[in-house]
Amino acid sequence: MPVRIVLSGLLLVSASLSLSAQPTNWLEAYREPAKRLIEASQASDFAWQRLAEVTDLYGPRLSGSVGLERAIDWAVETMKKDGLENVRKERVLVPKWVRGRESLHLLDPVPQPLVMLGLGNSVGTGPDGVTGEVIVLRNFDDLEAKAAQVKGRIVLFNVPFTTYGETVQYRSAGPSRAARHGALAMLVRAVGPTGLRTPHTGSTTYAPDAPKIPAAAIPAEDAERFQRLQNRSVPIRVTLMMDAHFEADVESFNVVGELRGRELPNELVVMGGHFDSWDVGVGATDDAGGCIVTWEAVRLMKVLGLRPRRTVRVVLWTNEENGMRGGNAYRDQHLADLKNHVMMLESDGGVFDPAGFGFSGPDSARRTITAIASLLATLGANKIEAAGGGADIGPSVQAGNIPSMSHLVGGNYFLIHHTPADTVDRITPKQMADNAAAIAVMTYAIADLPWRLGSEK
Amino acid sequence: MPVRIVLSGLLLVSASLSLSAQPTNWLEAYREPAKRLIEASQASDFAWQRLAEVTDLYGPRLSGSVGLERAIDWAVETMKKDGLENVRKERVLVPKWVRGRESLHLLDPVPQPLVMLGLGNSVGTGPDGVTGEVIVLRNFDDLEAKAAQVKGRIVLFNVPFTTYGETVQYRSAGPSRAARHGALAMLVRAVGPTGLRTPHTGSTTYAPDAPKIPAAAIPAEDAERFQRLQNRSVPIRVTLMMDAHFEADVESFNVVGELRGRELPNELVVMGGHFDSWDVGVGATDDAGGCIVTWEAVRLMKVLGLRPRRTVRVVLWTNEENGMRGGNAYRDQHLADLKNHVMMLESDGGVFDPAGFGFSGPDSARRTITAIASLLATLGANKIEAAGGGADIGPSVQAGNIPSMSHLVGGNYFLIHHTPADTVDRITPKQMADNAAAIAVMTYAIADLPWRLGSEK
Repeated sequence: MPVRIVLSGLLLVSASLSLSAQPTNWLEAYREPAKRLIEASQASDFAWQRLAEVTDLYGPRLSGSVGLERAIDWAVETMKKDGLENVRKERVLVPKWVRGRESLHLLDPVPQPLVMLGLGNSVGTGPDGVTGEVIVLRNFDDLEAKAAQVKGRIVLFNVPFTTYGETVQYRSAGPSRAARHGALAMLVRAVGPTGLRTPHTGSTTYAPDAPKIPAAAIPAEDAERFQRLQNRSVPIRVTLMMDAHFEADVESFNVVGELRGRELPNELVVMGGHFDSWDVGVGATDDAGGCIVTWEAVRLMKVLGLRPRRTVRVVLWTNEENGMRGGNAYRDQHLADLKNHVMMLESDGGVFDPAGFGFSGPDSARRTITAIASLLATLGANKIEAAGGGADIGPSVQAGNIPSMSHLVGGNYFLIHHTPADTVDRITPKQMADNAAAIAVMTYAIADLPWRLGSEK
Repeated sequence: MPVRIVLSGLLLVSASLSLSAQPTNWLEAYREPAKRLIEASQASDFAWQRLAEVTDLYGPRLSGSVGLERAIDWAVETMKKDGLENVRKERVLVPKWVRGRESLHLLDPVPQPLVMLGLGNSVGTGPDGVTGEVIVLRNFDDLEAKAAQVKGRIVLFNVPFTTYGETVQYRSAGPSRAARHGALAMLVRAVGPTGLRTPHTGSTTYAPDAPKIPAAAIPAEDAERFQRLQNRSVPIRVTLMMDAHFEADVESFNVVGELRGRELPNELVVMGGHFDSWDVGVGATDDAGGCIVTWEAVRLMKVLGLRPRRTVRVVLWTNEENGMRGGNAYRDQHLADLKNHVMMLESDGGVFDPAGFGFSGPDSARRTITAIASLLATLGANKIEAAGGGADIGPSVQAGNIPSMSHLVGGNYFLIHHTPADTVDRITPKQMADNAAAIAVMTYAIADLPWRLGSEK
């Protein structure tokens, strides 16, 4: 229907300044489905119960764990029971990093076991551990300034959390930066706001040109204690012991389910989250929640008989946390088909109170999405931010130049991120229902638009 | 000065209804010292730095630990440097309970290491641990109702935190209650509000007529997960491993320091906290903070040359957490002298924003204390609650029928109580200064009163 598409595009352009006040005609068609999706989602705690089921029964889901593989099989079976179509597992070889036993003992000024979490992908210390004096550094500049004192010591980067993007570099790059100056091991102040002596794990990345030294996170409270001790010129000695190691890669899977489009089934609106998690909580917020709300969005369409023009596909990616193999494999396995990916959405920022979406793509598409978001005002989910994307959709989005969205929520995601406290009880049934509804309305409308998103002009 | 005492008493009675509006003459004498004590305390972060020093350098201070004994020696030396008088250690034999290694592993429905803390005084499990199916119980009534299902199982008491007094009974009495029905071990939902997967340790008490079974706390999040699994009829199996054991009693000490009274040195106003702590945080709130603010109250009087008529004594009791030997020994060692104890005050409820004091004693004395508290209005510390006391002063207060006070503060004490998160950074320099000032003003005035507190009528 090219005429109608052009017409709609013109209408959008002319109406763009007052779109939320006076929606153009095309939007009217989605008002009733939006109402039904929101009401159906809010009518029960189905999504929350499903989130509790997966996290209670399968626990943490690190790549290579029995929990992840059982959860994947359960998801396939359950998607089929939901009546989704083309439900399948897409094979991905994933790394198997094993934490094993680990500990950090303060020796001086007083013997005391400390709270810690080894960083994902870290090497181990050997059974005797690594013992050394700690040097506390404020940042990488401080490392360079004190480079001569680092050799033979254990470096602690005591960097208060600002934003994840800013602070995480010490977790990612810290070990190799310290190792180049001869550090024995690296400790990093946990990347997150101060909790309750809460350590945060997460992956680290060794540079190819630096020795691989063991790396672990300690809580903010301990980092500040070490800082005070150093400021008093009190020597700090610790023993770090980590069994951490890699085993051979193992088979894992991306899980895919669909509701096939009624007119343009080959055009795809793809949404999902990553089904793997760190091994220390149960990965409810990061990212079973994102998996369940996107899956639930498709299930709600199915239950209500709302089959859009195009296919909606949910993908539960594997191995986001310590390898990104799932997202890369999806790109490689669907390379020829990426041109048919109309939009990809990832939910991996938590499932607290919904706020809206981030969007990256053509301005014309942004106007369409902004108009659809006006249907989510009652959920508080009508904000459209400047950029959207996600770690798992990233490779495909880049390869296919695909419009992409992230799912935005409130709440203090980084307080529990990669910690033992990433548990289901921090999320309410209403939050799950509202997030599923917001995603359902947005993706249903995009998949059903009379024109392909992004072709407005 | 009996005439003046009677006169003051009469004045108090007649003025009691409007005391805070129109303080009687005697109170005027304390207005200037109060102002000086408050200003001196607020002028520096001395008390907070001292709290950081003891917790940073000596760490947790469980009875029998090197940290406690080093901290005691430091306190004696530092009190002497402060110029306190009659500084001494009073010997106490204390139990030495050792946590050792411990772990809780979920076996079914999915293998997963869990967060836990063994309860103080618990027996161990032996090296192979105790493996069994978990039965989740709501309370003791539920235990009795399901008594037949308890044998051979591991009991979990999943009791949400209400008040400490109400909920702690499951930690204290739970193991023996469960053991009488044949339980293999007991788990208790951590006694405190839900934190960040935060377990709370604390002592348990075995009844003499029940088998001693191992006992540990698990976070609220895990207790709720177990509840949901049981509600789904999913069997839960765990292995609990605890090396916990007692070693022979060891020598410890109450630390005593004084500012001798200028007129009635044999009459004593005693204040303090307990210097021992659990082994998992650094015992900043429980109870180094209480020790430091009471000590600081006496130090401030000394620094300002405010020597009251009676002696003020600070006591840092040992072994409050898992034996109460320090408080009992103080009573026994000072039995003949308890008649000279005018008042005893304990600070063991945290050192967050000051609120006032609890008081137990004669009504006449309560009126005097209420009048003194009016001098603390600028600190927000002028509330006098119905009852006051403390675990360490309890034995002496009871034996000597001594008026007693507790130190009241705001804040969420039970969120961090007996957890790894009991660290110094949760307390601000201003809180330490304000609490020290409030205690200094209150105890200085009581120690200096023209009459003995409680003799008003």
